[in-house]
Amino acid sequence: MTQRAEFDEAIALEPRPGTPGTYDACLGEGWRIGAGVNGGLLLALAGHALGLELAGSRPDGIPGHRDPLAISAYYLSPGAPGPATVTAQALRRGRAVSTGQASVTQDDGAGTEVERLRALASFGDLSALDQGATTSAAPPPLPPPEECLSASEAPPHFLAHASLLERLDLRLDPATTGWAVGRPSGNGVIRGWLRMADGREPDPLLLLLAVDALPPVAFDLGHAGWTPTLELTAHVRARPAPGWLRVALRSRTDSGGYHEEDAEVWDSAGRLVALSRQLARAVAPSPPRLSGSDADGGASASH
Amino acid sequence: MTQRAEFDEAIALEPRPGTPGTYDACLGEGWRIGAGVNGGLLLALAGHALGLELAGSRPDGIPGHRDPLAISAYYLSPGAPGPATVTAQALRRGRAVSTGQASVTQDDGAGTEVERLRALASFGDLSALDQGATTSAAPPPLPPPEECLSASEAPPHFLAHASLLERLDLRLDPATTGWAVGRPSGNGVIRGWLRMADGREPDPLLLLLAVDALPPVAFDLGHAGWTPTLELTAHVRARPAPGWLRVALRSRTDSGGYHEEDAEVWDSAGRLVALSRQLARAVAPSPPRLSGSDADGGASASH
Repeated sequence: MTQRAEFDEAIALEPRPGTPGTYDACLGEGWRIGAGVNGGLLLALAGHALGLELAGSRPDGIPGHRDPLAISAYYLSPGAPGPATVTAQALRRGRAVSTGQASVTQDDGAGTEVERLRALASFGDLSALDQGATTSAAPPPLPPPEECLSASEAPPHFLAHASLLERLDLRLDPATTGWAVGRPSGNGVIRGWLRMADGREPDPLLLLLAVDALPPVAFDLGHAGWTPTLELTAHVRARPAPGWLRVALRSRTDSGGYHEEDAEVWDSAGRLVALSRQLARAVAPSPPRLSGSDADGGASASH
Repeated sequence: MTQRAEFDEAIALEPRPGTPGTYDACLGEGWRIGAGVNGGLLLALAGHALGLELAGSRPDGIPGHRDPLAISAYYLSPGAPGPATVTAQALRRGRAVSTGQASVTQDDGAGTEVERLRALASFGDLSALDQGATTSAAPPPLPPPEECLSASEAPPHFLAHASLLERLDLRLDPATTGWAVGRPSGNGVIRGWLRMADGREPDPLLLLLAVDALPPVAFDLGHAGWTPTLELTAHVRARPAPGWLRVALRSRTDSGGYHEEDAEVWDSAGRLVALSRQLARAVAPSPPRLSGSDADGGASASH
C-alpha cells in the first residue's frame, strides 16, 4: 500500500456526516512557521474543500469544476496545530466557471470556534486552458539547484520556528539571500527552486502552497520580524508538469510596513503556472499571540 | 446647497430599517459598460458598505477602521441599472485591521434575488501608513493630458455601450491605443490620465473605481470582445492627493483567453496609491445575457 504524501495528509478532509460541505481536518505540527501554521497550507486546505464542493454536476447536467482558477483568502487569526473545521459552499455554478466560499475555523481551547481564514474562489477546468497560452513574461533566472542555498542553511533562529522547511526541498538563489547574513539588498526580490521533500509532484492545489512557501520577501527589504498576511490571492494558470518549480517573489512598495508580495511560479516545462499577490504587514520581531480575537492586524503564519 | 457628485450619488446607501448591515442602493444607468454596470463601481459600492460597517468602535473602545486596505470581489453576474441590495458584515475587528464580507444583489425581475458580487476586505487607517513609504516602482510615462486621446474619441461601437465614459475624463496615451484603430500592439499595456468629469476629487473609494475604469487591457492583446472579470483584488496604499490620477494597465499571460490585468494608480503627488489585479476572460464579441443564473463564466461588466 502506498503511503500518502505529506502534503496530501496535511490537506486531508473527512466529510462530517449530516452536514454537507463541512469537513474535519487536522493542521499538522510539521507545517508551522513562526507562531502559526503556514498560510499557503491553509489556502490549499480551503481550495481542497472548494474543489470537492464545486466538482459536482449541476441538476441540468452541466459538469462541475475541479481546478482552482482564482482564490482569495483573508487571514483572520493564525492557525494552530490541531483539529480544524473546513466549510465550503457554492455561490454559483456556471458553464465555464463556478464560484464558492470557504472558511477554516478552530476551537480556541475554551469551546469557542475561531475563524482562521475566509476565502472566495472561482474554479474551472485547467485542461481547457492549455491551448493557446501566450506570455511576455520570462522565467526567473536561477543557477542550478545544486549551486543554490538549501533552506536547511537558514539562520537557526528561523529554522527553530519553521517545521514547514522540513517538508520542502527549497534552494534559494544566493544572489537573493543577503538578508540571511544581515545584508538585505533592499531590492525586494527572493528567488528559488521548490519541490516537496518527499517527492510529491506538483498539482494545482500544491501551487497554492508554493506561492507562500518561500521566506518572506520582506526579509530582502530589511524587515527581520513577523510578516503576517492580511490577504493572499492566487491565480492558477496551468496544470504544472512534474519536477522542480521555480518561484520568484518581488515587492516594490512598502507603506508603513504594509507591502505587497508578488509571486510567480514556473514549472519544469518553462510555463508560468501560478501568479499570486499578498498584502502583508511587517511587525516587530516577536511573534504574535495565538489568540485570534485580539491579534493585532492580520494573522496568517504566512512564512 | 451643494449638489452631490455623480460618484457619491452612485455609491449612496440607504440603511434598511431593522436590518443592520443591509442597505438599499441604485445602480445608475450612467455607469454601464458593455451589457452591465461597471465592475469597479460595484466594488466601490461594496467598499462603501464595508467602511460603514467596520468604522464603528469595538465594545472595548478600540476605534474602528474606515479605509479599504485590501478588497477582493468575485463577480457572479452582471449588474443591471436599477435597485440593488448591499449587505456588509464584520468578520473580525482588530486593533490595526478589521475584516469584513459584503454582497451586492438585485431582483432578477421575477422576484428572485440574484447575487452580483461577493467581496472580502480588510480595512485600516491609511493616515497611519503615510510615514515611511518607500517604493522602487516608477510612475508610468505619459505625455501631458492635452496630448493624449480622450475617451470620447473611442470607436462608436464602444461608446454606444459605455455610458460610464461620460462620467470620466479619461485621456489615453496614444502610444497604447493602437487597438482603437485595429492595430493592437500585443504588448498588453494601456496607460492614461483619469479624473472624474464633474471634478469630484479622488479618495480611497474612488480608487476602487479607478482600477477598473480604463478600456480592458485585453484590447491591446488583440481581443475585441467582452472581457468579464472573474475576480478583482485591489490594495489601497495611500490617500490620493487631489487632481489627475495616472493609471497603468498591464497583462503578460493569456491562457485560453484567461488573462490577468494588473493596474497601478498614481496620484498627482507622484505616489503609488493603489495596486490591483484581476482575472478576466476574453469571450466572443457579443455581450452576455443579463440573467445571472446561467451566464457563461464570470460576469462583471468590468470595462
